[in-house]
Amino acid sequence: MSAHPRLSINQATIKHASLRQAVDATVRQGVQSIGLWREPVADVGLAEAARMLADSGLRFSSHCRGGFVTMPEGAERRAAIDDNRRAIEEAATLAAAGAPGSSASSASLIIVAGGIPEGSRDLAGARGRLEEAIAELAPEAQAAGVTLVLEPLHPMYASDRAVLSTLKQALDLADRVGSPAVGVVIDSFHVWWDPDAEEQITRAGRDGRIASYQVCDWATPLPADVLLSRHLPGAGIIDFAELTSWVTDAGYTGDVEVEVFNAELWAKDFDEAVADTVEAFGTHVGTHLALPVRG
Amino acid sequence: MSAHPRLSINQATIKHASLRQAVDATVRQGVQSIGLWREPVADVGLAEAARMLADSGLRFSSHCRGGFVTMPEGAERRAAIDDNRRAIEEAATLAAAGAPGSSASSASLIIVAGGIPEGSRDLAGARGRLEEAIAELAPEAQAAGVTLVLEPLHPMYASDRAVLSTLKQALDLADRVGSPAVGVVIDSFHVWWDPDAEEQITRAGRDGRIASYQVCDWATPLPADVLLSRHLPGAGIIDFAELTSWVTDAGYTGDVEVEVFNAELWAKDFDEAVADTVEAFGTHVGTHLALPVRG
Repeated sequence: MSAHPRLSINQATIKHASLRQAVDATVRQGVQSIGLWREPVADVGLAEAARMLADSGLRFSSHCRGGFVTMPEGAERRAAIDDNRRAIEEAATLAAAGAPGSSASSASLIIVAGGIPEGSRDLAGARGRLEEAIAELAPEAQAAGVTLVLEPLHPMYASDRAVLSTLKQALDLADRVGSPAVGVVIDSFHVWWDPDAEEQITRAGRDGRIASYQVCDWATPLPADVLLSRHLPGAGIIDFAELTSWVTDAGYTGDVEVEVFNAELWAKDFDEAVADTVEAFGTHVGTHLALPVRG
Repeated sequence: MSAHPRLSINQATIKHASLRQAVDATVRQGVQSIGLWREPVADVGLAEAARMLADSGLRFSSHCRGGFVTMPEGAERRAAIDDNRRAIEEAATLAAAGAPGSSASSASLIIVAGGIPEGSRDLAGARGRLEEAIAELAPEAQAAGVTLVLEPLHPMYASDRAVLSTLKQALDLADRVGSPAVGVVIDSFHVWWDPDAEEQITRAGRDGRIASYQVCDWATPLPADVLLSRHLPGAGIIDFAELTSWVTDAGYTGDVEVEVFNAELWAKDFDEAVADTVEAFGTHVGTHLALPVRG
């Protein structure tokens, strides 16, 4: 199966690949776009990463990830916010190096909120500090041409990874911050269960906030490490026809990332893992996607 | 520590106890109320269970559980709905045997929706069948003096145990069914993460639908079997002061059940497990609860 033109390989799907290996496997399998993670970019240095991306001809769909800013104000939180500033610069540089047409005009930095600080029970406080950090960073992101892409995570991660749990919560936060540099990602794994998903996806589209659509599947039983409970599309219970139609009807025409954290997939040869992803995406998501609309 | 007068021991907290053992340990530890499960009641027979309960002087706070009605229409679903009819009768009989004053005037039958049927990806269809079953059973429950108590479960159970995931979804369903015999339970474990929890608890109180308040705590990492990831109050990150104030402000004055599925607690002597529960409840929940208002 040839790769769907809107498919993007999120590098986490082949987690153990270096940036070089990830770019090469993505190109070899005929995929046109890639989403990167900060650590493999840092391993080669930002300038070299940008050269690799430019030489590859791939589009750059997102940079993963900023956030983790829910700790109490102080040196640790200032360091986290400064690290987000560096991530904004990285996203801008990489977006400039990628081929045009990934989605919006802006570079996408995925933001994972962070959990409730150790020893605290103050969920509302952690959520408030997330919002303050986004408000602080949004003008800088906007100046750099970067969208801060809020990722609501499944509520099973609400205590230790992301106090941002629903699309509605993310969009309410974006409204209060009031910056065009704040967007959201619709991630199938995190939103499939949400009775408000259709309504909030429609709202996100109307407000121009859909910066990314990420797909992977949900299946039970969950593995011992619930972080690794994602599957390729088609291996679980998510109705990608319905979800994709909601995202499409909301006006999203950009790249669609497959981001799967799965020990079996990670154990495979990188080309084989990408080929499996191409196949699963084509069968279960691509058939429901319009072809790219590019300028 | 003496037991808080509004504490009720949900029998699942001492899962391996027979009904006799559960009633006896609850009475010996000075607890005034108990919530029962259908299986241990069936083990002794309904009439004998009712006698045991009446003799004990305990209040009866809830019957667990009905539901599991999301499969496609057919013989299996008819059998499940008929089984719910039997559960309604059991709840009515046991409530009549319990001491007065547990909460509302009505007996409480906890309803767990059921998951997406094997091989299906039709979440909306499963949710629709839940609603149809509640609409079918509500008049019979009302005639029997029983409240069908919808339990939204944490979204990590949405595919395999309960397609009902939020309080808002439960209250919307209750509104559409339009019967006074449909209520909801506020279970801390299932709702603590929900950004809409306060608003929906307030709504539930205003609409007269809070039939039960159940407490246990959330902590990470989750165990390999996520069904057993509950903890006694105080062992995790839930802010019981805040949550209890929302439930109290919404007008709930009834029994508060501790329902913990936890392998370590289940391994203990029943009296010790109940004593631990009394202590944890008193310290982390009871201090935020008004004393019972009884007629």
